[in-house]
Amino acid sequence: MSFKDIIKDIRSKWMEGSGANGDIVISSRIRLARNLKGIPFPQQLGEEDASAVKKMVKNAVAAEVIKDFPTVDFTSLTELDMMQKQILVEKHLISPNLLEHARYGAVALDQDEAVSIMVNEEDHLRIQCLLPALQLNEAWRTADKVDNGLEKTLDYAFDENFGYVTACPTNVGTGMRASVMLHLPGLVTTKRAGKFFSALSQVGLVVRGLYGEGTEALGNLFQISNQISMGRTEEEIINNLSGITQKIVDQERETRQLLKDELGISLEDRVWRAYGTLRYARVMSAEKALSLLSQVRLGIDLGLIDGLDPRILTELMVMLQPGCLQRIMALEMDEDMRDIYRARLLRERIKIDNI
Amino acid sequence: MSFKDIIKDIRSKWMEGSGANGDIVISSRIRLARNLKGIPFPQQLGEEDASAVKKMVKNAVAAEVIKDFPTVDFTSLTELDMMQKQILVEKHLISPNLLEHARYGAVALDQDEAVSIMVNEEDHLRIQCLLPALQLNEAWRTADKVDNGLEKTLDYAFDENFGYVTACPTNVGTGMRASVMLHLPGLVTTKRAGKFFSALSQVGLVVRGLYGEGTEALGNLFQISNQISMGRTEEEIINNLSGITQKIVDQERETRQLLKDELGISLEDRVWRAYGTLRYARVMSAEKALSLLSQVRLGIDLGLIDGLDPRILTELMVMLQPGCLQRIMALEMDEDMRDIYRARLLRERIKIDNI
Repeated sequence: MSFKDIIKDIRSKWMEGSGANGDIVISSRIRLARNLKGIPFPQQLGEEDASAVKKMVKNAVAAEVIKDFPTVDFTSLTELDMMQKQILVEKHLISPNLLEHARYGAVALDQDEAVSIMVNEEDHLRIQCLLPALQLNEAWRTADKVDNGLEKTLDYAFDENFGYVTACPTNVGTGMRASVMLHLPGLVTTKRAGKFFSALSQVGLVVRGLYGEGTEALGNLFQISNQISMGRTEEEIINNLSGITQKIVDQERETRQLLKDELGISLEDRVWRAYGTLRYARVMSAEKALSLLSQVRLGIDLGLIDGLDPRILTELMVMLQPGCLQRIMALEMDEDMRDIYRARLLRERIKIDNI
Repeated sequence: MSFKDIIKDIRSKWMEGSGANGDIVISSRIRLARNLKGIPFPQQLGEEDASAVKKMVKNAVAAEVIKDFPTVDFTSLTELDMMQKQILVEKHLISPNLLEHARYGAVALDQDEAVSIMVNEEDHLRIQCLLPALQLNEAWRTADKVDNGLEKTLDYAFDENFGYVTACPTNVGTGMRASVMLHLPGLVTTKRAGKFFSALSQVGLVVRGLYGEGTEALGNLFQISNQISMGRTEEEIINNLSGITQKIVDQERETRQLLKDELGISLEDRVWRAYGTLRYARVMSAEKALSLLSQVRLGIDLGLIDGLDPRILTELMVMLQPGCLQRIMALEMDEDMRDIYRARLLRERIKIDNI
């Protein structure tokens, strides 16, 4: 399977949506930062060294990771066009940050798109495992396996006292960032989200928007992750995040039920109006679409809307982004045109028969 | 046919929508004010005199009008319950004003509900003919025929110098009010309606909302009528109103085409979003429904929405009013409940198959 084929199919493993608490936890992600001994960090890297890093990782992937992930595909970012790179970002398989370092960057992906390895982002390697629902332990096991496989070939920069050496001090130690993407329309609607989130920093967690640091919380979607990766084991970090996530999930579920009981028909009205707008609008911004999709998804989760697979909404959240949209429509488009084709995509995909 | 049957069927002649300029002119109305010689105006009328007036009109209707309108039905307002009276107002067959005088009021209606005769409103008689589209001349011919028929039995108060004597000086003379109901989303959207309307008073015309004086212009619907009925013949009044109406219609049509050309897909987006909201909302106020129906009707008129009969919207404008809605649902409801059942009615009626 070529890399272009992987990009062509919009679906990734994490969009499947099945698993524990899949109604609220969209995805779980483990990301390990690793660097090679004796080579400057990517920001200080010349072309020759950067190419050498790429080659080493490529060989390591080919030699070892292959055993468990037979179709891992490796490519330099220079081999991809802008739209393909954008799609990888929109699918959360590479970071927006890697695009800025695209000259020396590379990425390896397995067939399911559950595992991705970024090369020459902030660190030499960023090993990511992204799974649907609340599956931090599973994601950690997979990422750890890939990490161990690569380590047989690669010589990681590791300090006895501090742990894995990374470009940014916040990643030193385990080099791990564990995160979950949560859909929290209940807590947002009742204005409880803010209070909840401000308490998170006290337990070493941080909240971000849909596309990472600095992006807004569109569609009531939030990413919660550990702030510091030192002084705790990987298991401790995961247990902490899992426990807090479970608490947020419980609160969100309770709040949704409360909303359903208290608002009754007005809540039903709100989710169906959102459906009606998505079903018939002719022009639709990504931002507005996410907000409406969030309402519809809430309606599905609460049993107010029948006949729509909740997964279609996780997929649509990605599909309506500029790169994916242009790929699906096989058309290069400016923003105005994308708004028109986005509306068309939504109209087709969101249709429930006989209602 | 009993009076209750007439009320049961929500459709009236004027809702048929066919005829000249029926895309913009919803209906045409001629109303003649008449009083009986030697009897005080209704406001000064005791029970005995009021009953006498009712009886005289009833007999006149039975004796004469019957020739051309075989099924004219006559009833005292005291024989109708509140909901039935409300329905007559919502269908524009009696005035809200008659309800306040309901103790002595009466009404006669023909089977098509094109002709209605109010008794003991502001004047002893108010003869009304209400037709779809721009048909002021036809409405005038019909009202005149009814008037002549009644005059064979009744002795009208008439002054050689002033003409027909009426309770309010603005009706003295011909006693006639001619009016048209216009749907003007184009002029309202482009904010040209106000300028147009302020010029109307200079040609002796006045603008009102959907349910007469003091009501707001909901759903971009306006009633335009002559302000004074003296010093001009009926034909002159009608020609003046018809001519101005034709000018407004031309402007509205031009503006709609302009909107379609200039806004393009955004206009399409707006009318389809309105459709989507009406199609799926679970709670809907009458005011908001009228505004959305106005958008949908504009979409139909401009060929942006296919598969919906424009007449259904004229009907829905009436059906969604409190009295009609309760009649259709066969249920007495408070305001909150009406909003829920109104949404249900709209969902059912506005459905286009296979889109």
